[in-house]
Amino acid sequence: MKPTHGRSRVAIENVTPQIDCGKFPAKRVVGENVEVRAAVFGDGHDHVKARLLYRPSQQQEWRTAPMYPIGNDMWSGNFVPNTVGSWQFTVQGWVDHFDTWASDLEKRIGAQTDPLACDPETSEDDRKRATEIQTQLHKDIALAFRSGALLVDRASAGAKGEEAKRLKAFGASLRASAEKKVTRYENPLMPEIMELVERYPDLSLATVYEREIPVRVDRERARFSSWYEFFPRSAGEAGKHGTLRDAAKLIPQIADAGFDVVYFPPIHPIGRAFRKGKNNSVVAGAEDVGSPWAIGAREGGHTAILPELGTLEDFDMVMDVAREHGVEIALDIAFQCSPEHPWVSLHPDWFLIRPDGTIQYAENPPKKYQDIYPLNFESDDWNNLWHELLNVFLFWTRRGVRIFRVDNPHTKALPFWHWCIAEVQRQLPDAIFLAEAFTRPHVMYGLAKRGFTQSYTYFTWRETAKDLREYLTEITQPPVSDFFRPNFWPNTPDILPGSLKTGLRASFQMRAVLAATLCSNWGVYGPAFELMEHVPAKPGSEEYMDSEKYQVRAWDRDRADSLMPLLKTLNVTRRAHPALQRNDTLRFHGTDNEQLLCYSKRAGDDVVLAVVNLDPRNAQSGWTQLDMQALGLRENEQYEAHDALTGEVYRWNGPYNFVLLHPEKMPAHILHLRRSASDK
Amino acid sequence: MKPTHGRSRVAIENVTPQIDCGKFPAKRVVGENVEVRAAVFGDGHDHVKARLLYRPSQQQEWRTAPMYPIGNDMWSGNFVPNTVGSWQFTVQGWVDHFDTWASDLEKRIGAQTDPLACDPETSEDDRKRATEIQTQLHKDIALAFRSGALLVDRASAGAKGEEAKRLKAFGASLRASAEKKVTRYENPLMPEIMELVERYPDLSLATVYEREIPVRVDRERARFSSWYEFFPRSAGEAGKHGTLRDAAKLIPQIADAGFDVVYFPPIHPIGRAFRKGKNNSVVAGAEDVGSPWAIGAREGGHTAILPELGTLEDFDMVMDVAREHGVEIALDIAFQCSPEHPWVSLHPDWFLIRPDGTIQYAENPPKKYQDIYPLNFESDDWNNLWHELLNVFLFWTRRGVRIFRVDNPHTKALPFWHWCIAEVQRQLPDAIFLAEAFTRPHVMYGLAKRGFTQSYTYFTWRETAKDLREYLTEITQPPVSDFFRPNFWPNTPDILPGSLKTGLRASFQMRAVLAATLCSNWGVYGPAFELMEHVPAKPGSEEYMDSEKYQVRAWDRDRADSLMPLLKTLNVTRRAHPALQRNDTLRFHGTDNEQLLCYSKRAGDDVVLAVVNLDPRNAQSGWTQLDMQALGLRENEQYEAHDALTGEVYRWNGPYNFVLLHPEKMPAHILHLRRSASDK
Repeated sequence: MKPTHGRSRVAIENVTPQIDCGKFPAKRVVGENVEVRAAVFGDGHDHVKARLLYRPSQQQEWRTAPMYPIGNDMWSGNFVPNTVGSWQFTVQGWVDHFDTWASDLEKRIGAQTDPLACDPETSEDDRKRATEIQTQLHKDIALAFRSGALLVDRASAGAKGEEAKRLKAFGASLRASAEKKVTRYENPLMPEIMELVERYPDLSLATVYEREIPVRVDRERARFSSWYEFFPRSAGEAGKHGTLRDAAKLIPQIADAGFDVVYFPPIHPIGRAFRKGKNNSVVAGAEDVGSPWAIGAREGGHTAILPELGTLEDFDMVMDVAREHGVEIALDIAFQCSPEHPWVSLHPDWFLIRPDGTIQYAENPPKKYQDIYPLNFESDDWNNLWHELLNVFLFWTRRGVRIFRVDNPHTKALPFWHWCIAEVQRQLPDAIFLAEAFTRPHVMYGLAKRGFTQSYTYFTWRETAKDLREYLTEITQPPVSDFFRPNFWPNTPDILPGSLKTGLRASFQMRAVLAATLCSNWGVYGPAFELMEHVPAKPGSEEYMDSEKYQVRAWDRDRADSLMPLLKTLNVTRRAHPALQRNDTLRFHGTDNEQLLCYSKRAGDDVVLAVVNLDPRNAQSGWTQLDMQALGLRENEQYEAHDALTGEVYRWNGPYNFVLLHPEKMPAHILHLRRSASDK
Repeated sequence: MKPTHGRSRVAIENVTPQIDCGKFPAKRVVGENVEVRAAVFGDGHDHVKARLLYRPSQQQEWRTAPMYPIGNDMWSGNFVPNTVGSWQFTVQGWVDHFDTWASDLEKRIGAQTDPLACDPETSEDDRKRATEIQTQLHKDIALAFRSGALLVDRASAGAKGEEAKRLKAFGASLRASAEKKVTRYENPLMPEIMELVERYPDLSLATVYEREIPVRVDRERARFSSWYEFFPRSAGEAGKHGTLRDAAKLIPQIADAGFDVVYFPPIHPIGRAFRKGKNNSVVAGAEDVGSPWAIGAREGGHTAILPELGTLEDFDMVMDVAREHGVEIALDIAFQCSPEHPWVSLHPDWFLIRPDGTIQYAENPPKKYQDIYPLNFESDDWNNLWHELLNVFLFWTRRGVRIFRVDNPHTKALPFWHWCIAEVQRQLPDAIFLAEAFTRPHVMYGLAKRGFTQSYTYFTWRETAKDLREYLTEITQPPVSDFFRPNFWPNTPDILPGSLKTGLRASFQMRAVLAATLCSNWGVYGPAFELMEHVPAKPGSEEYMDSEKYQVRAWDRDRADSLMPLLKTLNVTRRAHPALQRNDTLRFHGTDNEQLLCYSKRAGDDVVLAVVNLDPRNAQSGWTQLDMQALGLRENEQYEAHDALTGEVYRWNGPYNFVLLHPEKMPAHILHLRRSASDK
């Protein structure tokens, strides 16, 4: 098949960012630069040009931005999306006949010599020949002026007003020059006129890249957020079931500690059948409150509130308090049902029915989770199921919720998420979804590609310098960073990791510093974190002893040794430093001690360098080996390092600096690097 | 938009080989294995399965091949295309409910214990509880049998005859087992029955990857070929213009030297206007024969033969002789015209017309090539131009030519090649195109993607061990190797590279060994190569002095120092060793001397290891550091190394072996590695 545009000679390839051939959008936030790169090339020696076409998806008209060559036929251009939602872009390339002509003309003009100025020794024959060559060259230049005038005519036809007039005048002057007899032609190509012609490129034979590539533009919080998770039912007085009103009272101090997302585990009615007792025992006592993830009872399902917690009006009040303190409430959406969930009787066909007519409960044979019925995404009635699940999100958005933490999304069908998240964001462009998927890499990435704004990660289990460097390098660089936004959690209600079981204060400090500085999105499950809860349900288990998942806990939030002040310092530092609000500039630096992890982030002039002692038991010291260029510093420059954790100031010099970190003091430096006053 | 197949839960991503999202085909040869890999995964814990669908493009029905998991959710499968032409493949994945069920059942069966066999110390309560658990487990197993029977029913509905009968019987036995009261259930899942059920997968909710990916399947010679280029006009007696008949006389000895492609520079009428003289002088004498690339004169253009060379009948005779000796003739197609080419008067609109009405000749200002008119691929009449160019190829295919070396394809429009090559290959599937594009990487790769079977490379200028390793690593591995087939030339009529200007015999030997063993496609421009022509037209130039491009040369082909015997040895060795007929197994090995380049290739049991002394002036010695696993040998194994160049046999041992290469003897080993007899 012959192409319809056989004369369009420019090829456009390797366009990035692009996820799976444009099947999924690249992710950015409002106001963030989207740098687009592409290989743009043609045949022969003609010059090519390229530009970027971009638009919000709901607008038809393309906006344009210039692209510039960056070597090896690669071009780069960028745009800054100014609204939340779906955007798309593509690349246009063309042969620039005017630029080719101009470049050739300059060479011709430059090749003029004065044959009379030859060496007096030159033979008459050679002088004659040189004169002939010059005569021919002058003819060629005159002809080139006429060719150029035609190209300028074309540009002027596209221009209007003053610009059209100027172009016409230039064309006329080229024609006039062609008629003149001179001994030497001057170069008529002034920068202003070059620029003017370039403004009216001849796009009649331009190539447009074969795909329009989607970009999902989120609000800033998608990239930069600090989460604090707690169980509202543990927010009350000791010995009492806490309420949403109790939870609301905690919000001011959480906000004061610099968190901007307060996340509640499910707040819905909890099933009674097969309810789990304390420490996940299979038989619950009458007083046991059950797991909030066993959702649904006669009081309702995913759009109801557990009566012990309060009412929808109480929830609205929580939302008001949050708004007042500049934090957002994130709800946990766990699509699974207790046997008493209303869906079970209304829509038994949304579950898997066993040959004996009973509904299949969750199991990992021979283990059974009879308090949980998974939804069957292969149901014949999947269409209604999908809509009902969508409605759960929409219900809470009507109460003002814009952030959802989704429980185990990897056990629900991927095509469902792809559709559901797009649908919620179509209606509420500022909705944010955090995927709680701790599973295999392809599945985690698959969920992120299908719409999850942020994702839980393996950080929770990455402890050595090597493991942290490798994992961070993978997730903070394209292609992964184009679709996967990590959110680092040192702990969760499900995971008391080995690193925290030490119970050592330094372990908690170190893990908090790592999470808050390595990753622009981070969160803790409190008060278990700041109160350094560290006893597992049994040896080797990652479950907490007396886990809040199965019982109400009373916390002494004002304990003198609480780490809340450190968490506040971390959040304040994160807010003060744009460098910590992004991951793309993360750079690891060498040290001569593998127990000292050293890394930096930059945003313009703002440079933050962290050095973390990964050994919670021993003081560790060593020398940094800084990549000065990555820090924006000269190789042997002197600079100040202001420690955000201690307030101390160090005078550092060049790449090699001595560091000593005592775990019993503070196992990390978070250093704001500043050029010394004299060097400014 | 909700997808129509919302219940299809399996995701398929990262499918390879795939060039630019399937826009261009991956390249393979007939009988070669096409290994397809894909990430195939679903939600939750259900098992997934995948298979490969493939077919020749002109057939509608898919053939299938199983895929196997290779870790991290990646699957691999393969097919072997048995015909030349276009093929395509895609991947299908599904949730395998039967396999999931079988795996769960095995766990349940394995979880059975005998409560009566408890420790005698066990309390009555615990014993009771254990008995209860077993009773429940037995109920679950019985229920599982019934669930399994439903899945087997489904499989049997798809089966026929004996297999359907066996499946039905198995379903019935599962149902019967569910009714039985036993103290311990046995596992009913025999491998034969598992295999039988798997043969009838339930594909009703299967996912098919979103694209059908093209594969271009060429004949063997696309991957493995040995080219010999010479100018027919220099094939005659000294002082006379050679003819095609003279050229035919050289074919037997070229074939005897193991070459299988004999390639002629253009054989068409040569323009007289602005004809270039000897050594590219701008003024030609009356006796000057001109450049064969200045194509076209009153005698005709691209489908005519220069009268001095002979007639079309003579050409047919050349083809006959070639066929007789098992070699193919490759023609040089250079789409450019001398001012006297018939197209110039018939189709002036196929060229660029200057404002004075003259046709634009080739130039690189201020240099002019007035003997050459380039074609204008932006011509309004491009459609007819394309067809006429296509007809040039088709004309020569009708005379039996199947291999074309295309001159400077990078100065002709890329979309033209994409169409033209596909069109020729649609009519003649065994046509082979070699791109003579020495230009920027994206353009060279762009031409390969658009259909060129083989490509000239930068090998000609890669001289150091580091440069060779880096370049070879880039071009012999995916993604590049999936679409770009290198053809290594130590010299061409246009390029006398620095490495050969030494004039040293060892330089020529070394470059021939490198080309012939690093690359399964290679060629030389002779007799300049084997007679060690090495004087440049002027210092620093890559042009040959007295280049055949501008004059007839007389060669003493029987000169005692001719390297033809070495070229023959290389070709014989290449034919004897399948390892040298491919590039994908190329592996570089370490040495402790950067002047010694060491590498191997493997095909099954056939292992060839080359060590090349890159210093043509000095003997170099050192120790190899062989990757024994890559050679298919045990770490400390003793083996024999048979040198194909000298016939010597070395007894080697493990990875470290001493090598000494004297340039005045032979600057390389080409070693056939054989397990010692006692070790077989």
